[in-house]
Amino acid sequence: MAMPSRKPYGRSELRRLLEPRSIAVVGASDRPGSLGLRALGNLSGFAGAVFPVSPRLGEIGGRRCYRSVAELPDAPDCVVLALPADAVEPALRECAAAGAGAAVVFASGFAETGGERAAAAQARIAAIARETGMRIVGPNTTGLANLTIGAHVGFAEFPHHHVERPGAIGLVSQSGAMGLALSQAGERGASISHVLTAGNSCDVDVADFVSYLAEVPQAGATALVFEGLEDAGRLADAAGRAAAAGQAVVAFKLARSQPGRLAAASHTATDAGMPESFDALFREAGIVPVSDIEHLVETASFFSRLRHLPRRAARTPRVAVLSASGGTGILAADIAHALGLDMPQPQGDTLAALRAAIPAFGAARNPCDATAQATSNPDSLRRCAEAFLSDPAYDALVMPSGRAGLSPHFAVLSEAGLRHGKPVCVVWMSQWLEGPGAREAEALPGLSLFRSMRSCLSALAAWGRRS
Amino acid sequence: MAMPSRKPYGRSELRRLLEPRSIAVVGASDRPGSLGLRALGNLSGFAGAVFPVSPRLGEIGGRRCYRSVAELPDAPDCVVLALPADAVEPALRECAAAGAGAAVVFASGFAETGGERAAAAQARIAAIARETGMRIVGPNTTGLANLTIGAHVGFAEFPHHHVERPGAIGLVSQSGAMGLALSQAGERGASISHVLTAGNSCDVDVADFVSYLAEVPQAGATALVFEGLEDAGRLADAAGRAAAAGQAVVAFKLARSQPGRLAAASHTATDAGMPESFDALFREAGIVPVSDIEHLVETASFFSRLRHLPRRAARTPRVAVLSASGGTGILAADIAHALGLDMPQPQGDTLAALRAAIPAFGAARNPCDATAQATSNPDSLRRCAEAFLSDPAYDALVMPSGRAGLSPHFAVLSEAGLRHGKPVCVVWMSQWLEGPGAREAEALPGLSLFRSMRSCLSALAAWGRRS
Repeated sequence: MAMPSRKPYGRSELRRLLEPRSIAVVGASDRPGSLGLRALGNLSGFAGAVFPVSPRLGEIGGRRCYRSVAELPDAPDCVVLALPADAVEPALRECAAAGAGAAVVFASGFAETGGERAAAAQARIAAIARETGMRIVGPNTTGLANLTIGAHVGFAEFPHHHVERPGAIGLVSQSGAMGLALSQAGERGASISHVLTAGNSCDVDVADFVSYLAEVPQAGATALVFEGLEDAGRLADAAGRAAAAGQAVVAFKLARSQPGRLAAASHTATDAGMPESFDALFREAGIVPVSDIEHLVETASFFSRLRHLPRRAARTPRVAVLSASGGTGILAADIAHALGLDMPQPQGDTLAALRAAIPAFGAARNPCDATAQATSNPDSLRRCAEAFLSDPAYDALVMPSGRAGLSPHFAVLSEAGLRHGKPVCVVWMSQWLEGPGAREAEALPGLSLFRSMRSCLSALAAWGRRS
Repeated sequence: MAMPSRKPYGRSELRRLLEPRSIAVVGASDRPGSLGLRALGNLSGFAGAVFPVSPRLGEIGGRRCYRSVAELPDAPDCVVLALPADAVEPALRECAAAGAGAAVVFASGFAETGGERAAAAQARIAAIARETGMRIVGPNTTGLANLTIGAHVGFAEFPHHHVERPGAIGLVSQSGAMGLALSQAGERGASISHVLTAGNSCDVDVADFVSYLAEVPQAGATALVFEGLEDAGRLADAAGRAAAAGQAVVAFKLARSQPGRLAAASHTATDAGMPESFDALFREAGIVPVSDIEHLVETASFFSRLRHLPRRAARTPRVAVLSASGGTGILAADIAHALGLDMPQPQGDTLAALRAAIPAFGAARNPCDATAQATSNPDSLRRCAEAFLSDPAYDALVMPSGRAGLSPHFAVLSEAGLRHGKPVCVVWMSQWLEGPGAREAEALPGLSLFRSMRSCLSALAAWGRRS
C-alpha cells in the first residue's frame, strides 16, 4: 500500500466535531420526517448550545432559529448540513467563514453516484476541508454521536444516551445503516459510548475515528466496520495509537469479493481494495478481525472488559469449560479444537475439587459437566469455577448457559473472574435471545456475554495472539 | 456403516409415547424443586388423564395419588419415572406388566458414567423395551413435549404450549440442555411443535423421533442436534421418510473433534463416530447441515415455510438482494459469492422498474440499494420487491433490515412472496436482537427471519441442493 497521505486526525483535530459545546443545524425544519427536524430532535439530550438555522422559520419546537450561520451569536463548534446536494458547497464555505470547527454533510448524490460532475463536487468539498482546516464528515453520512455527552449529530435513531457500564465500546462504521444496526446493541444492554459513521469520507474517515477513540477514556475498545479506505496506512497508524493506549480494535471488512467491491463502488464510492492486503494490514497492525458481523459488538465488549484485567494470556490460551450440560461442553471442545485453543485436563487439587463439587454421574474433567443439578445448586458451580480460576494452568473460564434465567450464577462467576484476574465468558446458548438474565449479564464487570460459542472462543484465540 | 439393526420407529410405535391419552408420574412428589413435582407441574396444560403415583402421598396439588402403577384405573399410555437409578428397573417391569405404552426415564447414573455395572443396568433396561414392546426414552433424559396437545413429559421448562404459527418445527436433541436451549426460541416468537430429547437412547433414539415427526402434520421441518448414533443407518431411513413427506431435516452434529468425542463418551455414553462419515450420511440422506448451532432453528423454520411454496429453486438459486442500506447489500454480495449463489443483474423491465422506484443516488442493480429513503417510503420498497419477485430470473428475495421497528415493510414483503410463490428472507442486522418487529416477523407466513446473513444465504444454497 502507498505511504499514508497524512497522519490520522486525533482528539485535538476532532474535538470540536466530537466534543462540541455548540451545534448548529443548517436546514432546520418543522416538517415531520424531514432530516432537519430529525437532527434537531436527536439533540434533545445535548447540554450545549443548539442553533437551528432556517431562512424562513422564527423558531422550531421552542428553539430560536437563526437566518444564517453568519448570524449565529458564536462560531459553532459543529454544524449539521441537512441540505440537498447542490446547496452543500456554498453552505460549507459560509460555515468555514463563520469559524465553525466541523461540518457533517447528510446529502447523498456525490461520488457514490459514479457521475463525473458529482465526483468533482465531492472533490471541491474535500478541498474546503484541506484549505480551511474545518473538518468535514460525509457527504452521504447518517451522522455521528458522542453518547457520553448526548451530542448526536445525525438523523438516524441511535440509542439516546450512554449508560456507564462495563465493556463500553466505540462503534465506527463507514455505512450509516451498519452503524445504526450495531448501535442498537445498546437497546439490549450493551454499552456503547460513540457511534461514528463516515459515509463518503471526503475528509474524516474511519481511520480518523479509530484514532480519536484511542484518546477517549470512555471507550474501552473500538468496533469497526468498513468497505475500503483511501489510505490503508492511515488505519495502521490509528490502530497503532489504539494499541499504545491498550485499546483493541475489532474489525469487520466488507466488500471482500468482486461482487461486493462492485456494490461498494456505488455505495460510498470506495475502492475496496483486495482482501488479502487487508488481512495483512490487520495482522501487522494488531487489529482483531471477526468472521461474522454479528460477532463484532460482543467481541469488542470482551476486549473492552479485558483491559482492566492484569493477566495476559498464553499465546495459545488455556481454556477451562464449565457447563451444566454435557452437550454444550462438547460443542466447546469441538470449536476450541478447531481454533487451536488448549483445553488441558485438570490435575491434582483442581481435579479433586471438581470431583468433590459435582455428582458422580457428572464429568470432573475439561469440559466439566456439572450436570443439570448445578443449576439448582449454585454452590456446586461456584466451587468448580473457583477450582479452575485459581489454577495457574488455566487462562480463562468459559461457561455455556443452556437456558435463560440463570443470572444469579453469572454474578458469582463475574466476582470470581475479577478476583482471580482472568476473563470469564458466558455463552448464551438459549434461543430466547434477550431472555431473563441477558441484560443483567451485560452489566457485570467480570463477565463477557457471547451468543455464539465460535465467537467466544475466537475472541479468546485473538486475545492470545495479541498477548 | 453397518446395516440398520432395526427400522426407525414411526407414529404407530410412538403414538402412546407422544400422543398419550393418559400420563402417570411415578415418583410424584410434593417437595419443591423435586423432579417428580416439576414433571407434574409440566402437565398443567395436558387435557388427558394424569396419574401421580406415590406410595406415601394421598394427593398432590389436588390430584389423587395412586400407590403403584398396578393400582391405576387404566393402563397408562405413558409413564414418567422420576426415580433414582436403582429403582428404575423394577419400576419399568411393573409398568410393562400394567400395560403401559411407554416410559420416560430421567435417572442419570447409567452408561454415561463409564462404569461396567451401570452399563449392564442400561442394557437390562434396553432388554425390557425389546422384550415387552414398551417404548423407553432415556435413561438420562430431561424428557419430551408434544406441545400441540400440552403433553410435556419431562422436568425441564420447555415452552408451555404451542401457538399455531407459520414455520413450525419439531426439535429433536440427544442432549436435554441443548433441546431446552433451542426450545426457548418459542419465547421469542418461533413456532415449536415438539421438543424431543433422547438422552442415553437405550431404546428410542433421535432417529426414531425424526421418523415420528415425518408423520406429524404440525411439524413443517425437523431441527436435529446430536452427538452420535448407535445405528447411523437408522437416521438415513428416518431422513428418507421425512423427505418422502416433503419435510426437511436440518441438523447440527456435535462431537466432531477428538476432544469432543471424549466429552461425548462421558455425556450420553455415545460413540460419536467420525465426522466424515456423518458428512457423507447427511449428503446422501438429504439432511441439511448447519455450521453453527445458533442457526439451527431459523434454518429449520425457513424450510418449514418453504414446504408451502410451489416453486423449486434452481440448483444454484438466483437471489435478489434488496436493501435500504448499501453496506448490508455488500455483505450479502460477499457471502453469496463465497457460497456460490447467483446474484444476476436485473435486465429490461425489472431494471426499469427499479430505476423508477428508487432515488437517483441509490443503486438500481443487484444488490439493490433503495437507500434510507425507502424506510420512510414503503411504496418504493414494495415496487422494488415486486420487480424482483415477478421476474422469472430470480428464485428468492433477501432483504437485510438494518434497524428494529420496520415490521410494516415485512408484511408487504410476506404478502408479495406468497403471491409470487417465492421465498422472501429478512436478515435482521440490528443488534437489538428481539427489538420491535422481530416477533411480528416470525408470525408472517411468507417471510423467513434470519439473524445472520451467512445463515440465510446458506439456507438458500441448501434449498438449491435439495431441489
